[in-house]
Amino acid sequence: MPTPEAMTAAVHAYVAAFDRADPSAVRDLFAANATVEDPVGSPPHVGHDAIYGFYAKSMETGAKLHLEGPVRIAGNSAAFAFSVKLAINDSPMQIDVIDVFEFNDAGKVVSMRAYFGPGNFSQGAAPHA
Amino acid sequence: MPTPEAMTAAVHAYVAAFDRADPSAVRDLFAANATVEDPVGSPPHVGHDAIYGFYAKSMETGAKLHLEGPVRIAGNSAAFAFSVKLAINDSPMQIDVIDVFEFNDAGKVVSMRAYFGPGNFSQGAAPHA
Repeated sequence: MPTPEAMTAAVHAYVAAFDRADPSAVRDLFAANATVEDPVGSPPHVGHDAIYGFYAKSMETGAKLHLEGPVRIAGNSAAFAFSVKLAINDSPMQIDVIDVFEFNDAGKVVSMRAYFGPGNFSQGAAPHA
Repeated sequence: MPTPEAMTAAVHAYVAAFDRADPSAVRDLFAANATVEDPVGSPPHVGHDAIYGFYAKSMETGAKLHLEGPVRIAGNSAAFAFSVKLAINDSPMQIDVIDVFEFNDAGKVVSMRAYFGPGNFSQGAAPHA
Protein backbone atom coordinates (compact mmCIF):
# COMPACT_ATOMS: atom_id res chain seq x y z
CA MET A 1 0.00 0.00 0.00
CA PRO A 2 1.41 3.47 -0.80
CA THR A 3 2.04 5.76 2.13
CA PRO A 4 -0.55 8.39 3.12
CA GLU A 5 1.96 11.03 2.06
CA ALA A 6 2.33 9.45 -1.41
CA MET A 7 -1.45 9.26 -1.89
CA THR A 8 -1.90 12.86 -0.77
CA ALA A 9 0.88 13.94 -3.15
CA ALA A 10 -0.83 12.09 -6.01
CA VAL A 11 -4.04 14.05 -5.39
CA HIS A 12 -2.16 17.34 -5.43
CA ALA A 13 -0.34 16.27 -8.62
CA TYR A 14 -3.72 15.42 -10.18
CA VAL A 15 -5.16 18.85 -9.42
CA ALA A 16 -2.01 20.61 -10.65
CA ALA A 17 -1.91 18.60 -13.89
CA PHE A 18 -5.59 19.20 -14.53
CA ASP A 19 -5.22 22.91 -13.95
CA ARG A 20 -2.31 23.23 -16.38
CA ALA A 21 -4.35 21.19 -18.93
CA ASP A 22 -1.85 18.32 -19.10
CA PRO A 23 -3.82 15.14 -19.85
CA SER A 24 -0.66 13.03 -20.22
CA ALA A 25 0.40 13.84 -16.66
CA VAL A 26 -3.08 12.99 -15.38
CA ARG A 27 -3.11 9.69 -17.32
CA ASP A 28 0.26 8.72 -15.87
CA LEU A 29 -1.18 8.85 -12.33
CA PHE A 30 -3.46 5.93 -13.27
CA ALA A 31 -2.70 2.22 -13.65
CA ALA A 32 -2.94 0.92 -17.24
CA ASN A 33 -6.26 -0.85 -16.56
CA ALA A 34 -7.76 1.80 -14.27
CA THR A 35 -11.42 2.84 -14.28
CA VAL A 36 -12.78 6.39 -14.12
CA GLU A 37 -16.47 6.71 -13.21
CA ASP A 38 -17.27 10.41 -13.52
CA PRO A 39 -19.95 10.93 -12.32
CA VAL A 40 -20.75 7.82 -10.29
CA GLY A 41 -23.56 6.00 -12.09
CA SER A 42 -22.26 6.73 -15.60
CA PRO A 43 -20.38 4.20 -17.80
CA PRO A 44 -16.73 4.07 -16.71
CA HIS A 45 -13.77 5.05 -18.83
CA VAL A 46 -11.42 2.04 -18.77
CA GLY A 47 -7.70 2.08 -19.51
CA HIS A 48 -5.08 4.67 -20.34
CA ASP A 49 -6.36 5.67 -23.79
CA ALA A 50 -9.95 6.21 -22.65
CA ILE A 51 -8.78 8.06 -19.56
CA TYR A 52 -6.52 10.33 -21.60
CA GLY A 53 -9.38 11.12 -23.98
CA PHE A 54 -11.80 11.86 -21.18
CA TYR A 55 -9.44 14.26 -19.44
CA ALA A 56 -8.29 15.95 -22.65
CA LYS A 57 -11.93 16.72 -23.45
CA SER A 58 -12.67 17.88 -19.91
CA MET A 59 -9.70 20.24 -19.97
CA GLU A 60 -10.87 21.80 -23.24
CA THR A 61 -13.70 23.43 -21.28
CA GLY A 62 -11.11 25.49 -19.41
CA ALA A 63 -12.33 24.07 -16.12
CA LYS A 64 -10.09 24.52 -13.08
CA LEU A 65 -10.16 22.53 -9.84
CA HIS A 66 -9.97 24.05 -6.36
CA LEU A 67 -9.40 21.72 -3.39
CA GLU A 68 -11.61 22.37 -0.40
CA GLY A 69 -10.22 21.13 2.88
CA PRO A 70 -7.61 18.45 3.44
CA VAL A 71 -7.30 15.21 1.48
CA ARG A 72 -8.72 12.33 3.53
CA ILE A 73 -6.68 9.11 3.49
CA ALA A 74 -7.98 5.70 4.63
CA GLY A 75 -6.46 2.33 3.79
CA ASN A 76 -5.51 2.41 0.09
CA SER A 77 -7.92 5.26 -0.69
CA ALA A 78 -7.98 9.04 -0.86
CA ALA A 79 -11.14 11.18 -0.79
CA PHE A 80 -11.16 14.91 -1.47
CA ALA A 81 -13.70 17.69 -1.86
CA PHE A 82 -13.24 20.36 -4.49
CA SER A 83 -15.05 22.77 -6.71
CA VAL A 84 -14.79 22.95 -10.48
CA LYS A 85 -14.91 26.47 -11.88
CA LEU A 86 -15.60 27.01 -15.54
CA ALA A 87 -17.44 29.32 -17.90
CA ILE A 88 -20.30 28.22 -20.14
CA ASN A 89 -21.16 30.80 -22.80
CA ASP A 90 -19.20 33.34 -20.73
CA SER A 91 -21.30 32.60 -17.64
CA PRO A 92 -19.27 31.50 -14.61
CA MET A 93 -20.36 28.12 -13.29
CA GLN A 94 -19.31 26.07 -10.29
CA ILE A 95 -19.68 22.35 -9.73
CA ASP A 96 -19.11 20.90 -6.25
CA VAL A 97 -17.54 17.45 -6.41
CA ILE A 98 -16.01 14.79 -4.14
CA ASP A 99 -13.59 12.30 -5.74
CA VAL A 100 -12.49 8.97 -4.32
CA PHE A 101 -9.24 7.41 -5.59
CA GLU A 102 -8.20 3.82 -4.86
CA PHE A 103 -4.49 3.01 -5.26
CA ASN A 104 -2.54 -0.15 -6.02
CA ASP A 105 0.67 -1.10 -4.27
CA ALA A 106 2.68 0.68 -6.96
CA GLY A 107 0.99 3.95 -6.02
CA LYS A 108 -1.09 4.21 -9.20
CA VAL A 109 -4.81 5.02 -9.15
CA VAL A 110 -6.84 1.92 -10.09
CA SER A 111 -10.30 3.40 -9.50
CA MET A 112 -11.58 6.97 -9.57
CA ARG A 113 -15.18 7.76 -8.66
CA ALA A 114 -16.55 11.32 -8.89
CA TYR A 115 -19.62 12.24 -6.82
CA PHE A 116 -21.72 15.12 -8.11
CA GLY A 117 -25.12 15.63 -9.68
CA PRO A 118 -27.41 18.30 -11.11
CA GLY A 119 -27.97 19.80 -7.67
CA ASN A 120 -24.24 20.47 -7.37
CA PHE A 121 -24.17 22.98 -10.24
CA SER A 122 -24.44 26.63 -9.31
CA GLN A 123 -24.05 29.95 -11.05
CA GLY A 124 -21.04 32.10 -10.29
CA ALA A 125 -18.30 31.19 -7.90
CA ALA A 126 -19.73 31.97 -4.48
CA PRO A 127 -17.66 30.39 -1.74
CA HIS A 128 -19.21 27.66 0.38
CA ALA A 129 -19.04 27.48 4.14
CA MET B 1 -33.62 5.08 -6.52
CA PRO B 2 -34.41 7.78 -3.94
CA THR B 3 -34.49 11.37 -5.16
CA PRO B 4 -31.44 13.60 -4.72
CA GLU B 5 -33.50 15.66 -2.28
CA ALA B 6 -34.31 12.58 -0.18
CA MET B 7 -30.65 11.50 -0.07
CA THR B 8 -29.53 15.00 0.88
CA ALA B 9 -32.20 15.12 3.61
CA ALA B 10 -30.98 11.76 4.95
CA VAL B 11 -27.46 13.15 5.31
CA HIS B 12 -28.73 16.19 7.20
CA ALA B 13 -30.86 13.91 9.42
CA TYR B 14 -27.78 11.79 10.11
CA VAL B 15 -25.71 14.78 11.22
CA ALA B 16 -28.56 16.15 13.35
CA ALA B 17 -29.19 12.78 15.02
CA PHE B 18 -25.48 12.28 15.70
CA ASP B 19 -25.18 15.73 17.21
CA ARG B 20 -28.10 15.20 19.59
CA ALA B 21 -26.58 11.80 20.54
CA ASP B 22 -29.56 9.78 19.29
CA PRO B 23 -28.20 6.40 18.11
CA SER B 24 -31.70 5.01 17.48
CA ALA B 25 -32.40 7.76 14.95
CA VAL B 26 -29.08 7.13 13.24
CA ARG B 27 -29.71 3.36 13.12
CA ASP B 28 -33.14 3.92 11.55
CA LEU B 29 -31.52 5.66 8.55
CA PHE B 30 -29.84 2.34 7.69
CA ALA B 31 -31.25 -0.80 6.06
CA ALA B 32 -31.42 -3.83 8.39
CA ASN B 33 -28.43 -5.52 6.71
CA ALA B 34 -26.38 -2.36 6.11
CA THR B 35 -22.61 -2.15 6.48
CA VAL B 36 -20.64 0.65 8.17
CA GLU B 37 -16.89 0.74 7.38
CA ASP B 38 -15.48 3.52 9.57
CA PRO B 39 -12.71 4.12 8.70
CA VAL B 40 -12.36 2.49 5.28
CA GLY B 41 -9.99 -0.46 5.69
CA SER B 42 -11.34 -1.51 9.11
CA PRO B 43 -13.74 -4.44 9.71
CA PRO B 44 -17.29 -3.32 8.90
CA HIS B 45 -20.14 -3.14 11.39
CA VAL B 46 -22.96 -5.19 9.85
CA GLY B 47 -26.66 -4.90 10.68
CA HIS B 48 -28.82 -2.75 12.91
CA ASP B 49 -27.55 -3.99 16.29
CA ALA B 50 -23.88 -3.57 15.43
CA ILE B 51 -24.55 -0.17 13.86
CA TYR B 52 -26.48 1.01 16.92
CA GLY B 53 -23.65 -0.10 19.19
CA PHE B 54 -21.00 1.58 17.10
CA TYR B 55 -22.82 4.92 17.04
CA ALA B 56 -23.82 4.80 20.70
CA LYS B 57 -20.16 4.37 21.61
CA SER B 58 -19.03 7.09 19.20
CA MET B 59 -21.54 9.54 20.64
CA GLU B 60 -20.28 8.88 24.19
CA THR B 61 -17.12 10.78 23.25
CA GLY B 62 -19.19 13.95 22.91
CA ALA B 63 -18.09 14.29 19.29
CA LYS B 64 -20.07 16.68 17.08
CA LEU B 65 -20.19 16.75 13.29
CA HIS B 66 -19.94 19.89 11.17
CA LEU B 67 -20.76 19.65 7.47
CA GLU B 68 -18.29 21.39 5.15
CA GLY B 69 -19.71 22.35 1.79
CA PRO B 70 -22.73 20.90 0.03
CA VAL B 71 -23.70 17.23 -0.03
CA ARG B 72 -22.70 15.69 -3.38
CA ILE B 73 -25.27 13.35 -4.97
CA ALA B 74 -24.52 10.91 -7.81
CA GLY B 75 -26.66 7.94 -8.80
CA ASN B 76 -27.75 6.20 -5.60
CA SER B 77 -24.94 7.72 -3.54
CA ALA B 78 -24.23 10.74 -1.38
CA ALA B 79 -20.75 11.99 -0.47
CA PHE B 80 -20.10 14.72 2.08
CA ALA B 81 -17.14 16.37 3.78
CA PHE B 82 -17.26 17.26 7.44
CA SER B 83 -15.16 17.76 10.53
CA VAL B 84 -15.59 15.95 13.81
CA LYS B 85 -14.91 18.09 16.85
CA LEU B 86 -14.33 16.46 20.21
CA ALA B 87 -12.23 16.80 23.35
CA ILE B 88 -9.74 14.18 24.50
CA ASN B 89 -8.54 14.76 28.08
CA ASP B 90 -9.94 18.30 27.79
CA SER B 91 -7.85 18.98 24.67
CA PRO B 92 -9.88 20.04 21.64
CA MET B 93 -9.36 17.74 18.66
CA GLN B 94 -10.59 17.83 15.08
CA ILE B 95 -10.84 14.98 12.60
CA ASP B 96 -11.48 15.76 8.92
CA VAL B 97 -13.65 13.08 7.30
CA ILE B 98 -15.49 12.35 4.05
CA ASP B 99 -18.38 9.88 4.20
CA VAL B 100 -19.98 8.06 1.27
CA PHE B 101 -23.51 6.66 1.68
CA GLU B 102 -25.13 4.25 -0.80
CA PHE B 103 -28.92 4.01 -0.69
CA ASN B 104 -31.41 1.33 -1.63
CA ASP B 105 -34.67 2.03 -3.45
CA ALA B 106 -36.48 2.43 -0.12
CA GLY B 107 -34.20 5.35 0.72
CA LYS B 108 -32.27 3.51 3.44
CA VAL B 109 -28.47 3.56 3.64
CA VAL B 110 -27.06 0.13 2.69
CA SER B 111 -23.37 1.07 2.80
CA MET B 112 -21.48 3.76 4.68
CA ARG B 113 -17.76 4.26 4.15
CA ALA B 114 -15.81 6.86 6.18
CA TYR B 115 -12.53 8.19 4.76
CA PHE B 116 -10.02 9.51 7.29
CA GLY B 117 -6.66 8.50 8.71
CA PRO B 118 -4.02 9.55 11.23
CA GLY B 119 -3.03 12.53 9.09
CA ASN B 120 -6.58 13.89 9.39
CA PHE B 121 -6.36 14.46 13.15
CA SER B 122 -5.40 17.93 14.29
CA GLN B 123 -5.28 19.81 17.57
CA GLY B 124 -7.81 22.49 18.24
CA ALA B 125 -10.54 23.50 15.89
CA ALA B 126 -8.84 25.69 13.35
CA PRO B 127 -11.01 26.26 10.29
CA HIS B 128 -9.84 24.86 6.98
CA ALA B 129 -9.84 26.78 3.72
